[in-house]
Amino acid sequence: MLSRAVRLFEVFGVDTPALTVSELARRAGLPVATASRLINELVSYGWLRRDASKRVRIGVRMWELASRASPTLGLREAAMPFIEALHAVVGHHVQLGVLQDHEVLFVERLSAPGAVVNVTRIAGRLPIHASSSGLVLLACGASELQESVLAGPLRAFTPNTVTEPKALRVLLAETRRNGYAFCAGFIDESATGIAVPLRGLSGRTVAALGVVVPNDDAARMQIPALLATARGISRSMRGG
Amino acid sequence: MLSRAVRLFEVFGVDTPALTVSELARRAGLPVATASRLINELVSYGWLRRDASKRVRIGVRMWELASRASPTLGLREAAMPFIEALHAVVGHHVQLGVLQDHEVLFVERLSAPGAVVNVTRIAGRLPIHASSSGLVLLACGASELQESVLAGPLRAFTPNTVTEPKALRVLLAETRRNGYAFCAGFIDESATGIAVPLRGLSGRTVAALGVVVPNDDAARMQIPALLATARGISRSMRGG
Repeated sequence: MLSRAVRLFEVFGVDTPALTVSELARRAGLPVATASRLINELVSYGWLRRDASKRVRIGVRMWELASRASPTLGLREAAMPFIEALHAVVGHHVQLGVLQDHEVLFVERLSAPGAVVNVTRIAGRLPIHASSSGLVLLACGASELQESVLAGPLRAFTPNTVTEPKALRVLLAETRRNGYAFCAGFIDESATGIAVPLRGLSGRTVAALGVVVPNDDAARMQIPALLATARGISRSMRGG
Repeated sequence: MLSRAVRLFEVFGVDTPALTVSELARRAGLPVATASRLINELVSYGWLRRDASKRVRIGVRMWELASRASPTLGLREAAMPFIEALHAVVGHHVQLGVLQDHEVLFVERLSAPGAVVNVTRIAGRLPIHASSSGLVLLACGASELQESVLAGPLRAFTPNTVTEPKALRVLLAETRRNGYAFCAGFIDESATGIAVPLRGLSGRTVAALGVVVPNDDAARMQIPALLATARGISRSMRGG
């Protein structure tokens, strides 16, 4: 029963926030009667809700429970004053990503109106080898993670995406040496991603702080602000 | 099985983000063996996790699923650029609250270092009659909600909290007429809460935008900025 409920929730996505009961049943591989009964029970707990068009959505109660005790809330609260200040200077997009299932999961993002294209969304993911935040998490991550990612497949988003394992190894070594990842046009040719590690109490990298700015000569100028912000956040996390 | 899992999750709170298996079992009213089996299954789905001290916490996967399709994410994304701008001007605390189970649930908050005292937390709640965000949601809410809240009990946080039903009716009428709630020292004597409604597509109030500032003569000066910000957010939500 529990595994079926989990399957129902897994069907929702960034692009599919509302589904009919029969869509949910089909995508979760459950009989409609079973799905319908489960959905009714989950609606009664506030974990799912029915919208005005009778489609099913994630309930606010589930968000509340997940957020209240979320391991990312402490990180977010420590980082937010610094992220706001950085965003006021850099503009465009500033975001916070953590490692989840060999991908980057973005837990926070601030964007300015008219900012450069950015495929990231809050609670959205990006492949670890193609995004600057991902490369930071990979470069600072366990060697088993690195070997598993290097074994591929490594998707090319643009001709600039590094998909050759040998070149990716060099890029990871550079990222570690520099203390930041600089990815001009890796995911979209018009955008540059820059990211730095955030280190927790033990000195271990717990998240990546990244900016997405236009892919032009001015992009490198953001690096010092990003490095300074990461130091401020890491100090604040260690103090907290 | 599902109701037991829900009971386990309900045990976590803002002040209890990590619990041992036996604490979880006791608080959820479940036998330790049952709780332990459930916890193991939920850990395997990433919905719960064990921390370094073997205590159980909410898993990042649950946060991701809840956030991805959350009804509050669209609101938050529409509101965030405006909230940031308001926060840069007002300082202290700016927050976004929605109605949940006759209380205000805060889905977003920006705070400045050294800001005035504020009991609100993200994913935290406040009573609807005592907070400025709550009074806005109550004043714009259904009459059944109003009658149910007016029927009490109405907790006093300070001598300034309005707990007399007749006085509360007057305050709600004032809030509707003014288009904002102004609560000097209602929850803490040193702080003033001011909140305005955010209206969605249908013109219905979907959230309250609030600030918490020091309880002094300058507090009223924040009202125009708050009203202007609410208009910007509402227009942006209707356009989106």
